[in-house]
Amino acid sequence: MHLVAIGGSDAGISAALRARELDPSVDVTVVVADAYPNFSICGIPYFFSREVQPWQSLAHRTHADLEATGMNLRLETFATSIDVAGHRLAVRAIDGTESTIDYDALMVGTGALPSQAGIDGLDVLGPEDGVHVIHSMGDTFALDRFLETRNPETAIIVGAGYVGLEMAEAFTVRGIKTTQIQRGPEVLSTLDPELGALVHTELTDHGVTVVTDTTVNRVDKTGDSLTVSATHDGEPVTHTADVVLVVVGVRPNTDLLERAGASLGAGRAVVVDDTMRTGLPDVFAAGDGVTTHHRLLGTTYLPLGTTAHKQGRVAGENALGGTARFAGSVGTQVVKVFDLVASRTGLREHEAVAAGFAPVSTTAIADDHKRYYPGAQPISIRVTGDSRDGRLLGAQLVGRLGTETAKRVDTYAVALHAGLTVEQVSELDLSYTPPLGSPWDAVQVATQAWSREHRQAVTA
Amino acid sequence: MHLVAIGGSDAGISAALRARELDPSVDVTVVVADAYPNFSICGIPYFFSREVQPWQSLAHRTHADLEATGMNLRLETFATSIDVAGHRLAVRAIDGTESTIDYDALMVGTGALPSQAGIDGLDVLGPEDGVHVIHSMGDTFALDRFLETRNPETAIIVGAGYVGLEMAEAFTVRGIKTTQIQRGPEVLSTLDPELGALVHTELTDHGVTVVTDTTVNRVDKTGDSLTVSATHDGEPVTHTADVVLVVVGVRPNTDLLERAGASLGAGRAVVVDDTMRTGLPDVFAAGDGVTTHHRLLGTTYLPLGTTAHKQGRVAGENALGGTARFAGSVGTQVVKVFDLVASRTGLREHEAVAAGFAPVSTTAIADDHKRYYPGAQPISIRVTGDSRDGRLLGAQLVGRLGTETAKRVDTYAVALHAGLTVEQVSELDLSYTPPLGSPWDAVQVATQAWSREHRQAVTA
Repeated sequence: MHLVAIGGSDAGISAALRARELDPSVDVTVVVADAYPNFSICGIPYFFSREVQPWQSLAHRTHADLEATGMNLRLETFATSIDVAGHRLAVRAIDGTESTIDYDALMVGTGALPSQAGIDGLDVLGPEDGVHVIHSMGDTFALDRFLETRNPETAIIVGAGYVGLEMAEAFTVRGIKTTQIQRGPEVLSTLDPELGALVHTELTDHGVTVVTDTTVNRVDKTGDSLTVSATHDGEPVTHTADVVLVVVGVRPNTDLLERAGASLGAGRAVVVDDTMRTGLPDVFAAGDGVTTHHRLLGTTYLPLGTTAHKQGRVAGENALGGTARFAGSVGTQVVKVFDLVASRTGLREHEAVAAGFAPVSTTAIADDHKRYYPGAQPISIRVTGDSRDGRLLGAQLVGRLGTETAKRVDTYAVALHAGLTVEQVSELDLSYTPPLGSPWDAVQVATQAWSREHRQAVTA
Repeated sequence: MHLVAIGGSDAGISAALRARELDPSVDVTVVVADAYPNFSICGIPYFFSREVQPWQSLAHRTHADLEATGMNLRLETFATSIDVAGHRLAVRAIDGTESTIDYDALMVGTGALPSQAGIDGLDVLGPEDGVHVIHSMGDTFALDRFLETRNPETAIIVGAGYVGLEMAEAFTVRGIKTTQIQRGPEVLSTLDPELGALVHTELTDHGVTVVTDTTVNRVDKTGDSLTVSATHDGEPVTHTADVVLVVVGVRPNTDLLERAGASLGAGRAVVVDDTMRTGLPDVFAAGDGVTTHHRLLGTTYLPLGTTAHKQGRVAGENALGGTARFAGSVGTQVVKVFDLVASRTGLREHEAVAAGFAPVSTTAIADDHKRYYPGAQPISIRVTGDSRDGRLLGAQLVGRLGTETAKRVDTYAVALHAGLTVEQVSELDLSYTPPLGSPWDAVQVATQAWSREHRQAVTA
């Protein structure tokens, strides 16, 4: 039995680890396009903030750790095509040498590629010009080199999602005056604007210039200066800086599987079932390149590292003849922005409406622990539930670092997984001690506020 | 409609608040034995550590807050007997005046009384002698007066449960040299000794002398010195100190309801059903005086403030003709001891065996967040599951302050509530960002370790 996994990031490595864990006799080869298998892409902003040094620390496992599990690594090797009928993968090494690898099962974890969001100029301007993306260790080294040799004083970050916000913090920590440009009305558009506004304030409190409702059209270079041209309220505006970072999301990297005959679905990602099969014989796929089963939405595209780990694990088990199923995501996400933690799980109202629910929401503010004990801090919590049957549909939380906001969102995430109602969250037996909670946890103060506001609708 | 609640602590006040919330036209009277309604008994140790000052801060709500909800408070009024047929409660005011209160529904929240664990001398020695309990604000004032006027240099704490441990910290913070005496083999006997040992080390690291396997038999006074006589390994031993605090648990305070004809059950607590009815017409009861529905154990006695709040809320709703049911406890508990947080939920092995399960356990150590990000700390997690069907039965966690251990136990608590298997916990979509978690959360590193060790047993 020979399992070949393509991709050195979460999905590919998880599949390989799971296969080796379940059956140490199975041959496992991981084909990795670059020289950096199993690096934590989510950790890159903390390399730039200098909290994580050296860059080698970003490896979840070292090359030696991985090889100690018994898997074979083919680094700097690019998968060029799949011969599905022949069970053979064609690859090209960094020196241009072409070869093939026979497989019994193939697991494709080629992930996603950075989106360019239709911005002109990104095709001609690159790292040497000061225009960067950060999607790989190669990108990371290029930006690091630029920062170390050019010492930019000003930066523009196009995008205000998770990575954009983390990089705004990193640049600010390094003393680079940063402007963050967001297309929508508020930063962190995965939250409702009411909660995103708290993150906005945290950014400006730390000196970041935040520009919203602004769509970037192009980037130009004049001498050492970069000019970002954008549209704001229908009027053209420009911003200039020494370095521009474009972090406007990703698109699934499906080329290899598409050419092999796989189907594309939600978000133009490769369609997989809950066993992570692509429909091509013995070809599995997982991670940022494939569709995701969402327990409330059905099939969607929602690239997240946590999901890639889980899907990869399922694929690794099933490649060996197992019967594992991906249990589904509920879209749990969290980000730290300076001293603030913003998280969400489940659906926001517009997403819930699109999925056929009848959502209503309530925002509450509850202390992380008993106010009489020193250091209590408010957490803003927005709960969304179905007005017809009271089912919990989602929650968004913003609290300061130290308020256990990151793990409080997990309480809602488990409740969503289990299909609980908002009322049932109020009934949960959650932990309490005055320095760390309240007899009704903040999570439940919020669900009770929802029930007070919407109780009549639900029980009617 | 007149609802009378007896008891100014969690159960009584929760019932009164819920009734007023649901129907502002209902008359609600709360009969409180002392002058301190709605005080946080769980907060008392932090008054002694001086983190909470003045003592008035310990009120969840002030007297004025409570009256603003429209409830009537009868303070310093002791409920002496219930005329069930006549729907009439007899009370005695602090000045000795006897009177009666007619009710339509009665909710009894008389709570628990401190146990004396068969220790001789506690009947004759009291606060003026330096022998204390802390179960009420009156006890609190007595101990505070003793500490302020006598300035004891040494203390003995009999018992090493939640309050005992918190008071060991408080005494130590005040500079009182403290000896903690525990009957069992390890402190915090609600955890397995392997995890309790971590708490033991935290105590000794902060200068507390910990004495285990030692059963206290009597307390004597000689001059200003108190001598605690005990048995250790069958041999008599003595310890002396300036002040002795006895915190060896509680027993349900059932006198009033017993005399009215209520039945006693588990732990000699008053039997109630899930609607919080006692079986006596229109008499409800909730809190530390009654039996508890535990979702894994069935009916048990497990006095906890969180449970009292929930039961009181159910009783308040049902007293008004509602159909609420107490959803059940899973025994979630947490305590902070100096810089350590120890928590548990569900069952330990011996409890699970007694309840007919086939428990097996695995202990794992997992970082609270990615190790490459500064400040990562290990959390010790012991997972118990059923070897027959893989059902999650319980979890115990010990981690340092700041590791979100208190809210990580809640993930297991929700999973227990929902009846998930250990494997299903590994499938949950939990939050991740490098400063606050890992792609597989510590909670899941532990469940995966359990699955690795016990997988064959479960799938066989």
